[in-house]
Amino acid sequence: MIKSEPFKDEIFYIFAYLLIFFMKKKSNNSRRDFLKLAALGSAALGLGSVGNIFANPATDSNLIKTSQNHADHSMPEGNKSVMGLVCEPLKTVRIAIIGVGMRGSEAVRRLLQIEGVQITALCDVIPDFVKEGNKAIREAGMSAAAEYTGADDWMKICEREDVDLIYNCTPWNLHTPIAVYAMKHGKHAALEVPAALTIDECWQLVNTAEETQRHCMMLENCCYDFFELATLNMARQGLFGEILHAEGAYIHDLREWKFLEQKDGGYYNHWRLEFSKKHNGNLYPTHGLGPIAQIMGINRGDRFDYLTSMSTKQAGISLYAAEKFGPESAEARQTYTLGDMNTTLIHTVNGRTLMIQHDTTSPRPYNRLHLISGTKGMARKYPKPAIALEPAAHQFLKPEEFDALMLKYEHPLATQIGEKAKQVGGHGGMDFIMDYRLIYCLRNGLPLDQDVYDAAAWSSIVHLSEMSVSNKSQSVEVPDFTRGAWKTAAPWQIVGIE
Amino acid sequence: MIKSEPFKDEIFYIFAYLLIFFMKKKSNNSRRDFLKLAALGSAALGLGSVGNIFANPATDSNLIKTSQNHADHSMPEGNKSVMGLVCEPLKTVRIAIIGVGMRGSEAVRRLLQIEGVQITALCDVIPDFVKEGNKAIREAGMSAAAEYTGADDWMKICEREDVDLIYNCTPWNLHTPIAVYAMKHGKHAALEVPAALTIDECWQLVNTAEETQRHCMMLENCCYDFFELATLNMARQGLFGEILHAEGAYIHDLREWKFLEQKDGGYYNHWRLEFSKKHNGNLYPTHGLGPIAQIMGINRGDRFDYLTSMSTKQAGISLYAAEKFGPESAEARQTYTLGDMNTTLIHTVNGRTLMIQHDTTSPRPYNRLHLISGTKGMARKYPKPAIALEPAAHQFLKPEEFDALMLKYEHPLATQIGEKAKQVGGHGGMDFIMDYRLIYCLRNGLPLDQDVYDAAAWSSIVHLSEMSVSNKSQSVEVPDFTRGAWKTAAPWQIVGIE
Repeated sequence: MIKSEPFKDEIFYIFAYLLIFFMKKKSNNSRRDFLKLAALGSAALGLGSVGNIFANPATDSNLIKTSQNHADHSMPEGNKSVMGLVCEPLKTVRIAIIGVGMRGSEAVRRLLQIEGVQITALCDVIPDFVKEGNKAIREAGMSAAAEYTGADDWMKICEREDVDLIYNCTPWNLHTPIAVYAMKHGKHAALEVPAALTIDECWQLVNTAEETQRHCMMLENCCYDFFELATLNMARQGLFGEILHAEGAYIHDLREWKFLEQKDGGYYNHWRLEFSKKHNGNLYPTHGLGPIAQIMGINRGDRFDYLTSMSTKQAGISLYAAEKFGPESAEARQTYTLGDMNTTLIHTVNGRTLMIQHDTTSPRPYNRLHLISGTKGMARKYPKPAIALEPAAHQFLKPEEFDALMLKYEHPLATQIGEKAKQVGGHGGMDFIMDYRLIYCLRNGLPLDQDVYDAAAWSSIVHLSEMSVSNKSQSVEVPDFTRGAWKTAAPWQIVGIE
Repeated sequence: MIKSEPFKDEIFYIFAYLLIFFMKKKSNNSRRDFLKLAALGSAALGLGSVGNIFANPATDSNLIKTSQNHADHSMPEGNKSVMGLVCEPLKTVRIAIIGVGMRGSEAVRRLLQIEGVQITALCDVIPDFVKEGNKAIREAGMSAAAEYTGADDWMKICEREDVDLIYNCTPWNLHTPIAVYAMKHGKHAALEVPAALTIDECWQLVNTAEETQRHCMMLENCCYDFFELATLNMARQGLFGEILHAEGAYIHDLREWKFLEQKDGGYYNHWRLEFSKKHNGNLYPTHGLGPIAQIMGINRGDRFDYLTSMSTKQAGISLYAAEKFGPESAEARQTYTLGDMNTTLIHTVNGRTLMIQHDTTSPRPYNRLHLISGTKGMARKYPKPAIALEPAAHQFLKPEEFDALMLKYEHPLATQIGEKAKQVGGHGGMDFIMDYRLIYCLRNGLPLDQDVYDAAAWSSIVHLSEMSVSNKSQSVEVPDFTRGAWKTAAPWQIVGIE
């Protein structure tokens, strides 16, 4: 499992001698010093099983790159925190949509329903998708967007003058590169989940946003679903007391989707399946994590401190491939790395915990959990939304009590645009609420509900969970992407659109 | 957090020098060797954050003792494995019940309903409890039991000639001492959950059972609840395919119970609250873990390999105490160590995972989760039993389909004694099924459904979770209490009583 790399022996000797030298110099606090040195030494050696902080994952992969110790990530001179960033209001938000397949084509449709939006460019490697997008634009009575179909054309788009916002619906590996390039060219970036695949990419997003003072919002639509919004409102009003524990998940059987050909609506070049071949961890943490992180005020009063992650072996993808393509097919003989179920536990600095699951393989009903547990009560979305509150928290509320509570604590965004959102659609309306609120904030020069620190912290779970999994669930420190700003920032409040 | 202990410096130097010597001897596989040595060195130093195996928990406690490396636990000469242990059939099972308070008084009532049982001794430090027990015995037309009320009288009882089985319903800290003493005196031991509080106690149980060839059954009643039995039956018949992940819990708000005076029905000397003052981990893992461990064939074809555990801070017990007794009361000013919610992840040798939670503080509805997820479907008990199966696993079965399935897969024990069990009661009948089956096995010379290896493995989570929690969720190896016998032992099959 661990290959011997001769040149590392030298580093090892130096480390060991240093250790002794260090010990002789300082006889006090010997264990603490040992811990520090051991961490240093193991980092130098890439010894994941000994050092728990930013060890290299054992996987041999292009996408999950070597992580970097966040201690090295002091803010470059001239940069400035973007916590609570306010930018110039935009009368019209000129949007370029990159990737107009599954998610992007829906985004075109939704954004056309929002006042003050102009779609100025569309890009996809599949020309038909771009044409369809422009057809929808013209049908909405708007000017056609510029069309791009080259694999690297997103660069040209980012360089255009008539774009304020790059709306990025590409495969995962393009999320950070495009967002970084967009911000470097003065654009705001909205990007699909997860925003980043590695700790290095997380820092790229943070550094670039701080350097350019541009918005970088991960499009975590689940934060805008109705029950999530209502429980956020309840939480802010103290209904659950102090929230100590929360759970989220992405339990969604994607076996069929992963193997589907692109011509039949599947992912381009089976890109999602490719991740299942090479990675083991929580590859898609933010749908479950985003809403509970907001509710718990993560990055604003608290932050992720460390996590541990555990995966089952892989079984279901191979079984599916054997059944669908035959036991001797290339698909069945392929090695898949992604464990069927991954469970990750995150501990916050303030001593609270989050449990996040990822399972895109097992035959189960869809589930994002969304469980919130506090000192005065709890809420849980699946299998059916339910709430239990003191002094009668040993039973869930009866249907009529539940309905009354939901009405009382309806989030202003739901009240204001919930009905229209349901008509427009997009996962039951949440996608539209998200887009609407994003455009509203940009047009009014308001801070966004999800900022680059959220994008980084929530997405960092992809890489950190893989590190932990590949090291027998050793715990791993989570970087403080806010660089301490979490201590004074205020949690996202209950916001509306007027 | 980590105190400096001067004498350890010496060990440290020796370790460091050894390290270099070792490296010079062997230039290949340097990293692997370093890992081994590092583990050794850190064990010597008690460095929990570096070594993940059997580091000392940071707590200063009498009950959670220093663990022992199971590598030292080779089987003493003359001892023999008790995997599948068969003992002489007993025509009448003569039982002594030690502890006839909350749980024990109910046990008296239930056992009197079972043919072939004679209760020969009763013991409790509260004389009234013993008298009430004997009253029930006489009312059932049986000879009165010998009465004991001294704190150490359990020893005298274990030494009696007219006892076959010691049925132990004492507080947690007496479970192992009494069971060990009982077996040493030729008695079978049935003991309440958890069977042991430390790894050392787990090994005491295993060693003593192997030495004496006596049964040692932890009374994990939840294994005999109706849905748990049905899902065991379904699992054995392959309904869920290969089971990869399972979840169990003990989510039960005990705040009121923990503070209740004994005269009002509370725990003797608030013993359960005492644990909340000193320990942080999963103190009571087996109700959730037992049923899913049986279903997954743990100790019989697979075994626990390592775990990681995470707790929230404590908040709810203090809040409750302040509300009930006033913010300046001794109860409110007391320090409580037990985090409100603990989540533990266990990885098996065969690459499967179990997620176990413990929360006796938060205001939530009772929940043991009991979730089973396999390659062909899933089951889940709470909030309401539900099953989803391929090829339609994206939806739970409709009520009529569910009922039909439950009928088809009803466990023989439920069919045979379910009705009587519901009449007798005891957590809805499961307690009676457990007792009935135990007596049936003893009378027929059959292996018991839960053996000492289950008792040890399931209970070991108490100590191991605390180790992990106190070391920032570093993962901890779980000992193989079966000493390799898990590889060939067959899982518990679908058994009945005739």
